[in-house]
Amino acid sequence: MSAPGPGTVTCVGLGPGAADLMTVRADRLIRAARHIAYFRKAGRAGQARRIVEGMLPADATEYPMEYPVTTEIPFDDPAYRACLKGFYEGWADRLAALAEGGADIAVLCEGDPFFYGSFMHLHARLADRVPVVVIPGVTGMSGAWTATDVPITWGDDVLTVLTGTLSEAQLADRAAGADALVVMKVGRNLPKIRSALERAGRLADAWVVCYATMQGQSVRRLTDCGADPHPYFSIVLVHGQGRRP
Amino acid sequence: MSAPGPGTVTCVGLGPGAADLMTVRADRLIRAARHIAYFRKAGRAGQARRIVEGMLPADATEYPMEYPVTTEIPFDDPAYRACLKGFYEGWADRLAALAEGGADIAVLCEGDPFFYGSFMHLHARLADRVPVVVIPGVTGMSGAWTATDVPITWGDDVLTVLTGTLSEAQLADRAAGADALVVMKVGRNLPKIRSALERAGRLADAWVVCYATMQGQSVRRLTDCGADPHPYFSIVLVHGQGRRP
Repeated sequence: MSAPGPGTVTCVGLGPGAADLMTVRADRLIRAARHIAYFRKAGRAGQARRIVEGMLPADATEYPMEYPVTTEIPFDDPAYRACLKGFYEGWADRLAALAEGGADIAVLCEGDPFFYGSFMHLHARLADRVPVVVIPGVTGMSGAWTATDVPITWGDDVLTVLTGTLSEAQLADRAAGADALVVMKVGRNLPKIRSALERAGRLADAWVVCYATMQGQSVRRLTDCGADPHPYFSIVLVHGQGRRP
Repeated sequence: MSAPGPGTVTCVGLGPGAADLMTVRADRLIRAARHIAYFRKAGRAGQARRIVEGMLPADATEYPMEYPVTTEIPFDDPAYRACLKGFYEGWADRLAALAEGGADIAVLCEGDPFFYGSFMHLHARLADRVPVVVIPGVTGMSGAWTATDVPITWGDDVLTVLTGTLSEAQLADRAAGADALVVMKVGRNLPKIRSALERAGRLADAWVVCYATMQGQSVRRLTDCGADPHPYFSIVLVHGQGRRP
């Protein structure tokens, strides 16, 4: 009898948050999974894990992959980068070993994995070692613009997607040239994003969507938001105004 | 006994093409639908209808909404706009009448409805008249970049989404300033898109994805594509090269 082949690491896009907005393919895979890995902050339940609550088989083994503490070190600090590098390398080794032993592993990822998802850092370290598959998902931004009940792009509109981690000058420059605009990774960057959109003349048309498609969903004009903290997964958007018959 | 309330028009995002890449919510709604409308070109089966083949209840009523002939009139021709306007107004009236009579109607839409989808032209004409709901879907571009097996955006990458209907100069200008790039609505615009990417210095890194997630899926470098015709739903993309730990 020949030895069994390696298992597959499948990254499952979970969509914007509501459990029934994951794809049928993702739903089936998660309900049958024996090994489930997901990212989370240390000491937190984690958004990805929360989405699949009630779906996992009773005998599934869970692998919470806890980000190293990051709140006090800026991203461009070499120590932070080294710390993250070690984190991804360690988990890539662990998942590769599991797969080489014949296990199939589902890795949960909010939204769409290849669109700003953390899994890509594992993918880069796993794809040459074991079979890796990615299941696309509904992006958080699709959930957000659907929540506003207004289309994001019409006709020939150009859509620009930015991250709130850019500088205010970069954000303002990009926002000024955009038709439709989405800003991801909002959280503590909200005051900077607001200033940038004001400089770009786009503030009056900007919306903030929190917890899109989930309990507690809110849709507000950015001008109506104070300086109160916003969750990391908040999304700022400005709708396109392109041609329409 | 009071009269029943109006039915709901639900636009269902179908995702990029594979039937199991629609959301669980979309799948359930379609399998229970009594009235199903979808856009298609006259005389064609239609991509949206094809995706749900085998899922519709036997007694469902279908409403193919056939676009008026458009291949010989440019979009900025007033006759074309008037023709399209009449088409959308006619179908909005018809769906509103059905809903007012108590029927729930599912309108099928490839990809994500509020992202360049035709349904938005019905939405604008229906939302004040009858209840309208939109179910977001996986975008065609998510299906395309997943097919390349390479993430589209890393770190602070800016993603720019263009339509191939823009002029070559506009395409070149936008492409030069983008980190990650997606061009939708490719089809007969491919030679123009290719020239624009060459002018922008992005041709060597550009990929063309046809029939993403579907039978016949192909992923090729744009430099390897001849002048052969490409389907409308082809997507051109250039991956971001942002920071990674």
